[in-house]
Amino acid sequence: MRVLASTPRADGFHMPGEFEPHDGCWMLFPFRGDVWRQKAVPAQQAFVEIVKAVARFEPVTVGATREQYEQAARLLPDNIRLVELSYDDIWMRDCGPTFVVNGRGDVRGVNWQFNAWGGLYAPYDQDNLVAPKVLALERAPRYDAPCIMEGGAIHVDGEGTLITTRECLLNAKRNADLSQAQVEALLMDYLNVGKIIWLDDGVYLDETGGHVDNLCCFVRPGVVALTWTDDENDPQHAISQRAYAILQNERDARGRKLEIHKIHQPGPLYFGAEELEETEDSGQINIDFAAGDRLPVSYINFYIANGGVIVPTYDDAHDAAALAQIAALFPERQVVGVYAREIALGGGSIHCITQQQPRAGA
Amino acid sequence: MRVLASTPRADGFHMPGEFEPHDGCWMLFPFRGDVWRQKAVPAQQAFVEIVKAVARFEPVTVGATREQYEQAARLLPDNIRLVELSYDDIWMRDCGPTFVVNGRGDVRGVNWQFNAWGGLYAPYDQDNLVAPKVLALERAPRYDAPCIMEGGAIHVDGEGTLITTRECLLNAKRNADLSQAQVEALLMDYLNVGKIIWLDDGVYLDETGGHVDNLCCFVRPGVVALTWTDDENDPQHAISQRAYAILQNERDARGRKLEIHKIHQPGPLYFGAEELEETEDSGQINIDFAAGDRLPVSYINFYIANGGVIVPTYDDAHDAAALAQIAALFPERQVVGVYAREIALGGGSIHCITQQQPRAGA
Repeated sequence: MRVLASTPRADGFHMPGEFEPHDGCWMLFPFRGDVWRQKAVPAQQAFVEIVKAVARFEPVTVGATREQYEQAARLLPDNIRLVELSYDDIWMRDCGPTFVVNGRGDVRGVNWQFNAWGGLYAPYDQDNLVAPKVLALERAPRYDAPCIMEGGAIHVDGEGTLITTRECLLNAKRNADLSQAQVEALLMDYLNVGKIIWLDDGVYLDETGGHVDNLCCFVRPGVVALTWTDDENDPQHAISQRAYAILQNERDARGRKLEIHKIHQPGPLYFGAEELEETEDSGQINIDFAAGDRLPVSYINFYIANGGVIVPTYDDAHDAAALAQIAALFPERQVVGVYAREIALGGGSIHCITQQQPRAGA
Repeated sequence: MRVLASTPRADGFHMPGEFEPHDGCWMLFPFRGDVWRQKAVPAQQAFVEIVKAVARFEPVTVGATREQYEQAARLLPDNIRLVELSYDDIWMRDCGPTFVVNGRGDVRGVNWQFNAWGGLYAPYDQDNLVAPKVLALERAPRYDAPCIMEGGAIHVDGEGTLITTRECLLNAKRNADLSQAQVEALLMDYLNVGKIIWLDDGVYLDETGGHVDNLCCFVRPGVVALTWTDDENDPQHAISQRAYAILQNERDARGRKLEIHKIHQPGPLYFGAEELEETEDSGQINIDFAAGDRLPVSYINFYIANGGVIVPTYDDAHDAAALAQIAALFPERQVVGVYAREIALGGGSIHCITQQQPRAGA
């Protein structure tokens, strides 16, 4: 429970790229009946498949609430570390810590403030304690960052470059009192980056308000993948085109131009009437979903594990091409597709529900 | 969450002596207003002092419930690993796992069944999950022992000898269906001991029903300490005399006679009327305490840490002699006395609220 008054930058710590070696992966077991249909039973099944896929490549720790602990223990395979943890929903990417390392065997964590994507979901007090609890459990000293941030809002190349979106980080519901320059200074101090690439908008209708991790990610330094559509009538088309144009004209922290790979999106996919009817109305969610509303899905929302890439699939015509493209982008890793529509119904995908803990020595 | 169908004995694992090296110590933060007076505030203060004393010698992990987590974080020093954990009360010695090692770097744990000392306190369902949760958190495979047992009911010398009491382990409220021979077979299988020394009764009025850890413990192989009184009118006198006689006539697993050190008990000490009035009546405790009832206290209820011994003190005339005797028994360790009356009011002492995790390589 050591809280440091300095910053990672001042102490020589930085956030590594997700493609760098991990000590393991953190995830949270689904339970909310107002987010996950049929009292979260199908989401739990989908979750377990994702856990199993990640666990093929690296140690996985799953948090479960007191009430869910025994059910999670029954469903999860016995090579999973299951820990009791309170949280409001399962988006470990967003409520979890951002781990930072110094390349000399030390790992620490950044504890961002969390407000449920601008107050979309209630409550979020327990989510806001997840990062400190994970860091305490791992005996990792922590930095309390003085701003609202989610892990899904950023991607880094581990060599000084960060990608994010204006839609998300300059959103009035997050840090209304911070200017773009102030946000940049905080990212530089707490992630130890030197160059920030600002895209404009995230995936069309993404309820997070523009999380970059559904739109664009680093494959390795100098190489990014971007969700794409060839349909000019799709609102996603302009978003992806604009992102492509920005990326094409940027250079990373080391002065490199970026190699950009377009991955065609699934669908479009939509909420089914039955799926929504099977979800409880708790009055705790400040968004209205209707049958036929579009799901903000992409294949970019994958998780890079040690030697593997876990990619969401949707029983969609684009699945095979996406898997093949991602396999080509990661020739040294095994690509595993996992059907993730149940997670998409809750508003995210595989990257959103995972959080890598980098190898301390990395 | 790996559960093994074999036994520690079959797999070459055994429980080391408490005086062998530890990786750390586990404890649980007090909160019950029906056990701890003044809504547990004085108990929390006493607890923090004990944590600090143990943490001078080895890493300490403290469990706190979701509701108590932030209060515990405020009170505990920042070198403590604080983890969220549900439990019914703080007796980690009794609800926690018994760790076993194989001397080749592997640590596993025994998960005994727990029934709150024969049903004295309700509820106990969360206490009964503490051992599996601790073992999962430490990634230690576990053995589920098919009997009710508490860590306070046993002491081992790490060389094949175990001490317990008939009052406790043959108590009808624990394993009424097991004979003495069956209990012995289970202890031999799950702790990998070869010789069991049966004392008769535990400390006078000890609500645990005869826990040996308040009466007698191993200082090292071949050497035990025993609580004592010189007052022939004290009911404890006959209990200690009888234990002394048994110990004098026994030999340990290696055929050694035991060296027995008498440590004169504190007091006698008694419940104060005010102390009981300040404790809530929840209807969850199946024992009646009255002002003037004797507290079952001894100095034997100490915790042996790496290089230290944490000894309960009671602001009593016998404190100084006990500390000096224990210091002489552990010449290579630093002896630290901590005032522990608040813990005694809840029914135990320092040994009862701690659980060592032996060094994996030991």
